[in-house]
This record gives sequence, C-alpha cells and structure tokens, in this order.
Amino acid sequence: MADEVILLDFWPSPFGMRARIALAEKGIEYEYKEENLSDKSPLLLKMNPVKKQIPVLIHNGKPVCESLIIVRYIDEVWKCISPLLPSDSYQRAHAMFWADYVDKKIYSLARQVWLSSVEEHEAANDELMGCFKQLEGELGDKAYFGNDTFGIVDVALIPFYSWFYMFEQCGNMSIEAECPKLVAWGKRCMEKESVSKTLPDQHKFYDLLMDLKKKILAK
Amino acid sequence: MADEVILLDFWPSPFGMRARIALAEKGIEYEYKEENLSDKSPLLLKMNPVKKQIPVLIHNGKPVCESLIIVRYIDEVWKCISPLLPSDSYQRAHAMFWADYVDKKIYSLARQVWLSSVEEHEAANDELMGCFKQLEGELGDKAYFGNDTFGIVDVALIPFYSWFYMFEQCGNMSIEAECPKLVAWGKRCMEKESVSKTLPDQHKFYDLLMDLKKKILAK
Repeated sequence: MADEVILLDFWPSPFGMRARIALAEKGIEYEYKEENLSDKSPLLLKMNPVKKQIPVLIHNGKPVCESLIIVRYIDEVWKCISPLLPSDSYQRAHAMFWADYVDKKIYSLARQVWLSSVEEHEAANDELMGCFKQLEGELGDKAYFGNDTFGIVDVALIPFYSWFYMFEQCGNMSIEAECPKLVAWGKRCMEKESVSKTLPDQHKFYDLLMDLKKKILAK
Repeated sequence: MADEVILLDFWPSPFGMRARIALAEKGIEYEYKEENLSDKSPLLLKMNPVKKQIPVLIHNGKPVCESLIIVRYIDEVWKCISPLLPSDSYQRAHAMFWADYVDKKIYSLARQVWLSSVEEHEAANDELMGCFKQLEGELGDKAYFGNDTFGIVDVALIPFYSWFYMFEQCGNMSIEAECPKLVAWGKRCMEKESVSKTLPDQHKFYDLLMDLKKKILAK
C-alpha cells in the first residue's frame, strides 16, 4: 500500500513551511489542505485536539503535530533520502539544540517586531539581532548549519528569511551589515528548489504582513 | 576508556531533575557539580555559552544542553538499558509531542502560580488545571505515559509532582479531586528509586519555594 500523506497547513505559516520544505527535500507526494484559521476544519480539530494548530502531518490516518517533531518524523520514516539529522548522537543533540533555539526565540521576537509599535519593540529589535548574531557565530564559514548538507536547523530557520525585509523595515536594522554570512546562507538556501518553491518573496511577504497587522490590531 | 560524565546542575531545578532521573534510570555513574546560579562557574559559561543555563551534561568533554535534549541523548547513547523513548517512529513522535507540551506549558504556568499575587494568577490556576486535565486524559488507564514502562513524558513531568502541594496551596485547587489518575501516577512514579531519590518531599519543597519567592520578589 502506498503511503497516504496529508498536510493541514496555512501557507504563510513559518511552521507549515518547515513541514513543506522537509517533504519537498524527501520528494514525498502529499495532499495539501489549506486551513482557514478563523474557521478551523473538523479534520484539524480532530487531528490536533490539544493544540488545534497547524501544521499537522497525517500519515496513513495518524496525526503528527508540532513542526520540528514533524520534520524529525519525516526524516526518520523516509530516512534514505536527503537526511536532515546527523547520524551521530552527539551531532544530533547539537543540531536539536539549535533547532530548539530557533523555535523558542525567533518567532516570539519576530511577532513583537511585527505587531508592536516602534517605541514598544526596541528591546525586541536588539534581542532579535542578538539571536541572529548567535546564529551567525554558529554558522561560521559552513555552507549550511548542517555543515555541507542542508539539515534540520536550516529547515527550522529558513522560513524566517522571508521576514528579513520586514525586520529591516519595522526594526530599523540592517541584517546584511551585521550578519553578512547569515544573509549569504539565506541566498544559498534559496537556490534549493525545496526552499524557493516554498518561501514567498520578501517584499510581497512584507505587504502581506502589513495587511495582516492591520487586521489583527483592529480586532 | 570509561565514559566521563559530568552534570552541571542546581538541585531544585525541575529541568536538572529530568537529567538526574534519566541518568539514574540508566544506572550511569557521573560527577554531580552544583551550580550557584547567582555566580555561575566558568565551566558552565564555557559549556553553555549561548544560554548559560543548567542542566548541562558533559560527556567525554562535550556539552549537551536543554533538559529534553539531554534525556533523549542519554537514551540514544545508553540505549540497551531502560529505554525511555519508543522504538517505533510514530510512537516516538507522539511521546515527543507530550514531552514538548509539558516543556512549553507547565513551567511558565507553575511560575505564575508560584510568584504572582493571588489576584494576578487566577487565570494561570485555571490554565494549569486545564493542562493537568489534558495530561490526565492522555494518561488514561495506563500505568505511565510510556504505557507499561516509564518513559520520556514521565521524566519530563514527574519533577513537577514535587510542586503539587504548592499548586494546591497557592492556586487554591485540589489536583487529587480533579485529576485522581495523575496523582496516582505521581505516587506510582515515586515508587521508583530513580524518582524518589531525586524528588524532594512536597511539603519541604513548598517551604523552599516560599523562601525563594521572598528573595526573588525582594530583588
């Protein structure tokens, strides 16, 4: 029996993008189902009753939730193609530390830079740039966070590359001036089809984020 | 060469307790180094320069940080004894979902119930009880979250069993009345030496938390 793979997602979600990039890296065919987050489908509520969030990967009828858990699951099940995690336990723990770092830090700071007023988010700007500098240090002169190959840290972080123009506009910062290696890494990742077909253009995404901001703040 | 294992820790930390319980489950000998969190050691700052937090497991000179990553690392390296993660990929993803749920939810709510005034933490009380009910539902009639065997979700959650008396006192709730299976699970876990030798008594821990609260709020 062929595998049945369904992804419940919302296209602008950086968490959903992680799942889509991992699926594309592995060449897995799947059915994509876009969710309306203000009117969630019965399938989403059934498959993720605890958190009721996208993305959810449904593999042969069984749900896997939380983006990094989905990426690791995909890597373990389809392990022969484009491995996303190192085979060595120590290197795997090291990669998970950085994927977890991105997960815990970047989105909440990104939301603050995006949604709060200029006066309110100065501290968030500085903290976000501090995170980028840490990541620049970890990247060093490697092609990817996963050394020569694109790995789970790259998958975790690359969706936020689409937000870079917004960070620069709203956060009054120059990521390229302060973290040139990180920007070069983002451009390098964009040369991969799995990434370029998933990520929206930074300028178009900026317009979308500004539209969404108006709607969120009007609520 | 025998493995050299060192744990940098702070004994009341629920995150440190996870590492200690996992090490005890596997029967691993290690050197315990207590940290003074208001004057962190050069070793801690060197081994976890990004987060500067305990626990850090140093295995043959190399650091592993973040409690759940440490527990999974221990399980992968010493895999033959007392497995903490299921061998099946889907079951592993399911266990990681709940371990991650405990990680993201319980400590931040616990801190609110512990450190904020009675008026301030009513919402946190309700949310914490809601989480316990979710966990009670996931536990069901199983002996442990890992089914018949004590696993990573048990390791992630059990340190907070020491906080139950504090939650009841400060949060004006009865966990036993609302989540009897969870309390029975806590007692069952306490029958394991790895847990009973690591966890402090709930009443003594309450006194310690109240002392710590005074010091933290006086700062």
